[in-house]
Amino acid sequence: MSEPKNYHMSPEEFRQHAYAVVDWIAEYMQTVENYPVMSQVQPGEIRAALPPDAPQTGENFTDMLADFEKIILPGITHWQSPNFFAFFPANNSAPAILGELLSAGLGVQGMLWLTSPACTELETHVMDWLVDMMGLPGKFKSSASGGGVIQDTASTAALTALLAGRERATNFASNARGCDGRLVAYTSTQAHSSLEKAARIAGIGQENLRLIDVDENFAMRPEALAQQIQADRQDGLTPCFVSATVGTTSSTAIDPLIDIGRICQSENIWLHVDAAMAGTAAVCPEYRHFQNGLEYADSYCFNPHKWMFTNFDCDCFFVGDRAALIHTLSILPEYLRNQATESGAVFDYRDWHIQLGRRFRSLKLWFVIRHYGIQGLQYHIRQHVELAQQFAEWVRKSPDFELSAPVPLNLVCFRHIAGDDDNQRLLDRLNASGKLYLTHTRLNGKLTLRLVVGQTHTQAKHVSQAWELIQEYAAEL
Amino acid sequence: MSEPKNYHMSPEEFRQHAYAVVDWIAEYMQTVENYPVMSQVQPGEIRAALPPDAPQTGENFTDMLADFEKIILPGITHWQSPNFFAFFPANNSAPAILGELLSAGLGVQGMLWLTSPACTELETHVMDWLVDMMGLPGKFKSSASGGGVIQDTASTAALTALLAGRERATNFASNARGCDGRLVAYTSTQAHSSLEKAARIAGIGQENLRLIDVDENFAMRPEALAQQIQADRQDGLTPCFVSATVGTTSSTAIDPLIDIGRICQSENIWLHVDAAMAGTAAVCPEYRHFQNGLEYADSYCFNPHKWMFTNFDCDCFFVGDRAALIHTLSILPEYLRNQATESGAVFDYRDWHIQLGRRFRSLKLWFVIRHYGIQGLQYHIRQHVELAQQFAEWVRKSPDFELSAPVPLNLVCFRHIAGDDDNQRLLDRLNASGKLYLTHTRLNGKLTLRLVVGQTHTQAKHVSQAWELIQEYAAEL
Repeated sequence: MSEPKNYHMSPEEFRQHAYAVVDWIAEYMQTVENYPVMSQVQPGEIRAALPPDAPQTGENFTDMLADFEKIILPGITHWQSPNFFAFFPANNSAPAILGELLSAGLGVQGMLWLTSPACTELETHVMDWLVDMMGLPGKFKSSASGGGVIQDTASTAALTALLAGRERATNFASNARGCDGRLVAYTSTQAHSSLEKAARIAGIGQENLRLIDVDENFAMRPEALAQQIQADRQDGLTPCFVSATVGTTSSTAIDPLIDIGRICQSENIWLHVDAAMAGTAAVCPEYRHFQNGLEYADSYCFNPHKWMFTNFDCDCFFVGDRAALIHTLSILPEYLRNQATESGAVFDYRDWHIQLGRRFRSLKLWFVIRHYGIQGLQYHIRQHVELAQQFAEWVRKSPDFELSAPVPLNLVCFRHIAGDDDNQRLLDRLNASGKLYLTHTRLNGKLTLRLVVGQTHTQAKHVSQAWELIQEYAAEL
Repeated sequence: MSEPKNYHMSPEEFRQHAYAVVDWIAEYMQTVENYPVMSQVQPGEIRAALPPDAPQTGENFTDMLADFEKIILPGITHWQSPNFFAFFPANNSAPAILGELLSAGLGVQGMLWLTSPACTELETHVMDWLVDMMGLPGKFKSSASGGGVIQDTASTAALTALLAGRERATNFASNARGCDGRLVAYTSTQAHSSLEKAARIAGIGQENLRLIDVDENFAMRPEALAQQIQADRQDGLTPCFVSATVGTTSSTAIDPLIDIGRICQSENIWLHVDAAMAGTAAVCPEYRHFQNGLEYADSYCFNPHKWMFTNFDCDCFFVGDRAALIHTLSILPEYLRNQATESGAVFDYRDWHIQLGRRFRSLKLWFVIRHYGIQGLQYHIRQHVELAQQFAEWVRKSPDFELSAPVPLNLVCFRHIAGDDDNQRLLDRLNASGKLYLTHTRLNGKLTLRLVVGQTHTQAKHVSQAWELIQEYAAEL
C-alpha cells in the first residue's frame, strides 16, 4: 500500500540530513576557537539578509543548512568557545547534546506522570542522585518530604519559591484573594535582578523587596536582615520570603547561610538559596563549605546549564516540603484527571512549576552524569577553579591591575588601576578583537571586569592567552 | 602539543554516538506505531530499574543508549504515534528535530540581542513571517508597534499577558507596590486551567478571576462578560484583563472575539486571545474566520509545538504594543548593560518574558516553515481537519454514539449513549489496548471522549482504525 501524498521529510532523508548536522556540530566543536567570540554584526544586519516573506513551497534542507552557515553564523556569539569568559557560562557537552537530540526525537510531554511515566521518574531519580553526590540536605530527596524538579531557569525557580513562601505566610489567602500590598520579601543588594522581577510578577511589588546591605565581601549582612524584618513587622507588614545567594552574579559573593537560616527559622520565613552558577562546585567536597547552613533552606536551586556541561535549559530546583509547593501551584481540571494522579502514588510535575507542558530534560542530565561520572565532573570543576585562581594570582602580582572582590571559586573581578574610562576602553578593545569575551559589573561604584572560567573546553592555555592579551592591550592604553 | 587530560567525549566520538542516536530516531519514526501508545508501566517501575546512586566513574555511551531502550522506553507514552488522539497534540517533525539539534550544538543564550544577535533577529523575523502567513493583525509585526516572541508555553504567555494588563490598568503601580486585592480578570468557564494558575501567580487571586458563563456551544457569552465588568466596577474593583479562547481545551469552542473585543476596547481592558492549538489553522485562509475580531486583541498566542510540527517548546506570543510589555518586565542590572541595548536599536527578549536565559528556538521554527512551505503546512492542516470531520460524521450516523459539542476543526467530542460508566469503561479498555490513546473531559456534566487529529503522521487509516476499534469495544460493553 503506497503512502498517501505528504510533505514530510522521510526517515531516510532525516537520517542523511541529521548526519550532516552532526558533522557540522563535530566540526564546530573543533573549530569554535577560530570564530570571533562576540559576534561583530550590526543591529539589523541578520534580518536584512533574510527574505521578507515565508516561502510558499518547501525548500531543500541542504539549502537551509547553507543559509544557516552564511546568514546566521556571523550573528552568533560563541558561548561554547573556550575563550568565552563573559557573564556566567552556559556550557554544554557532547552527552548533553545527545540527550537533547533524543528528547526531541521522542517528543513526549511530561506534564503528568501518566503522559510519560519515565519522563517523571527519571527526573525524580536523577534529582535524588544529585542530592547525594553534592552533599545537599536529605530533606530535598523524594524519599523524604521534599524532592527536586527541573525548571527552565533560576529566574523561574526564584519566582516559584517566592510563590510558595507567599502562600505559606498567608495560609494560601494570596492564591485565593490576591495579594494585599502588605507582603515583604528580602534579598541582598547584590542578588540577581530576577528577584526584583519575581517580586513584580508575584504581586508583591518591587518596593516591597528589601535589598539588604552587604559587607565588604558583598555578602548579605544578617543583622541588617534581622533589623529590617523587625521593622517591617512593627509596621504591620508580612515578611514572607528571603532569597540568599551562593555566588552572586557580580562577584560570586557567598551569603552567610547559617545566620540567615536561623533568622528565617525563628521568623518562620521561607528561605530560598540561589546557587545558580556556583552550586555546581558542591560536586567537590572541598567546596561544600560555601553552602554550610543549607539545611535551613526551604528551597534551593543550581543550574547544570551554567557550569555542569548540560545544555540550556536545566535548572535543578529542590524543596524540603513538596506539599507546600504543590498546594501553591496545583489546579486539576477535568481533562487532566486520571487514576495515577488520584492514587497519590506519583508526582505530576505540572504542579511543581508555572508551565503545564514540559519536555524530557532529565535525559540529558542523566547522560552527562553517567558520561563524566562523579570523578569526571569533579576533575573539570577543579580545573576551572584552579585556572581562575591562577588568573587571580597574576592580577594580584601585577602593578597595573587589582582584584575588586574575593575569588572564592571560578570568577575573577578585577580592574586596571587607571580608572573607569580606561577599563571601558580596555574591555571594548578586548571584545572587539574577537579573541575573547569578557563582561563587566560595578563594585563599590567602580567599573569592574569579570573573567569567569566555566566553559567546558577552557584550558590553561586559554586563560594564559587571555591574561597576555589583557596586559598587551593595557600597555597601549 | 597534546591535549591535557580530560573526560570529554571527543568530537569524533560524538559523531559516532550521534549517528547512532540519529539512526535510533529514524528507526523510531518508522516503528512508533508498533508501541503501545500509552505506557503500560506501574508507578515506581522505572525508578526500580535504575541504580540508587550516580556512578563514580564515567560510563560508555553505548551502554547508556542500551539502558535508554531497556529501561526508559517502556515508560514512554508515544506522543509521536499516529494513533495518539489524546489531550492536544505535541507534534514534531524531522526539520524541527534538526533545528533543535543545531540549537543544542551551538548552545547560545539569547537573553540580549548582544549575546547572539542572530538568535534575536531570526526570531523577530520568523514571527513577522507568521503574522503575514496566518493573516494576523498587522500591529503584531515588529515593523509596527508590536512584535512577536517565542515563549515556552501558552500558560506562560497567558501569565505574561495578564501581567501587562495588570500594569496597564494600574499605571504600573502593581509592579511598584504590589497588588491591592481589587484587581479582577475574566475568562470563560471553559478556559484553560492556566488562567486560574496565572491569576494566583500574579497576585490577583483565583476568586478574582471571573469565570464567565458560556452558550450552548461552550463559547463565552459577551453579554455576561459586560454585566460582570459593570458589577465589578460598581463594587469599586479594577477590571484589568480578559482572556478569550479560540479553541478551548475541552471542546475547541470559539469565543466571539468581535463582541468581546468591543467590550474590552470600550472598557480599556487588556484582551488576550489564547489559540494555543487551534491557532495553527489560520495558516489556511478558509479557517481564519474563527479569529475574526483579533484586531481587538492586545496579545495573542498559538503553539507551533502543538499542531505545527515544531517540537516543544515553541509558543508564539504576539503583542500589539510592545512598549507596554517591555515596561512591565524590564529590569536592567549593571552586568547586563551594553551599547546595543542602550542605543534602542535592538530587541532584548529577556524583557518580553519571565525568564532571563533563553535558547535559540526560532531555528527549528525557521526550518519547519522552510521545509514545508506555506503550501505544505496548509495541506497537512487541512488533512487533519478533514479526518476529524470524517470521524464526526461517523459518530453522527452511529445509533450508539453522539457528538457532545460542535466540531469546528480537528477535535471531536463524543460519547456512547450508554452513560458515564460505560464511557469510562470504553475509554479505559481502548487505552489499555495500546492501539490508540484518547482522553476525556466533561461537557454539561457528562463524561465525554475526545479524539483530536493533530499528530504529524496521522492518516486516514489511523482514524478509521480508531473508529473500528471504538465500535468493536463498544459492542462488547
